[in-house]
Amino acid sequence: MIKNLLQSIPTDLTEEVFETLAMGANIKIERIISKGHSTPENDWYDQEQDEWVMVLQGHGILEFEAGKELEMKVGDSTNIPAHTRHRVKWTEPNEETIWLAVFYNS
Amino acid sequence: MIKNLLQSIPTDLTEEVFETLAMGANIKIERIISKGHSTPENDWYDQEQDEWVMVLQGHGILEFEAGKELEMKVGDSTNIPAHTRHRVKWTEPNEETIWLAVFYNS
Repeated sequence: MIKNLLQSIPTDLTEEVFETLAMGANIKIERIISKGHSTPENDWYDQEQDEWVMVLQGHGILEFEAGKELEMKVGDSTNIPAHTRHRVKWTEPNEETIWLAVFYNS
Repeated sequence: MIKNLLQSIPTDLTEEVFETLAMGANIKIERIISKGHSTPENDWYDQEQDEWVMVLQGHGILEFEAGKELEMKVGDSTNIPAHTRHRVKWTEPNEETIWLAVFYNS
């Protein structure tokens, strides 16, 4: 069975949409769709697992508590080690940003 | 650090190019670049792990020993359970096909 990740975009994007694509032993593959969403100010993701993430469509900015920002465009990927506090600072308001994320244990 | 998966394509594509993007406990994320490559006839991948795979660029056809074929275009993803014998039947000869594969334990 094929699932196209650039299609079947939910019409209601009031909230970010998280969808599990595959799940295994201590690993989850997720599609996340944002449209102008960002993490609330001073709110940080502090995850138990490593996260490898890429942008399939759109454009977003990740901010790290340590100070760095990463501007992520189509095809860009990065790895966020467990407990590396970060947030989504900005996503494109006029187009869906489609993230692919893999959560795993290092 | 950002790595763009649609860029830094090796110039020598005599053989398919496999590149590990991230690795954890029983999980590997890999970029595979094909250009007209296919698995030899009657040769099947028979993998110990599940594989979730998608096409980031290009076009390929997966064939399963059980008889099914999956034509995979940009954005298409599928999940191949462990020991599901399959091969790459065809990839676009005129353009690089970029696959993203996650190998994991179910």
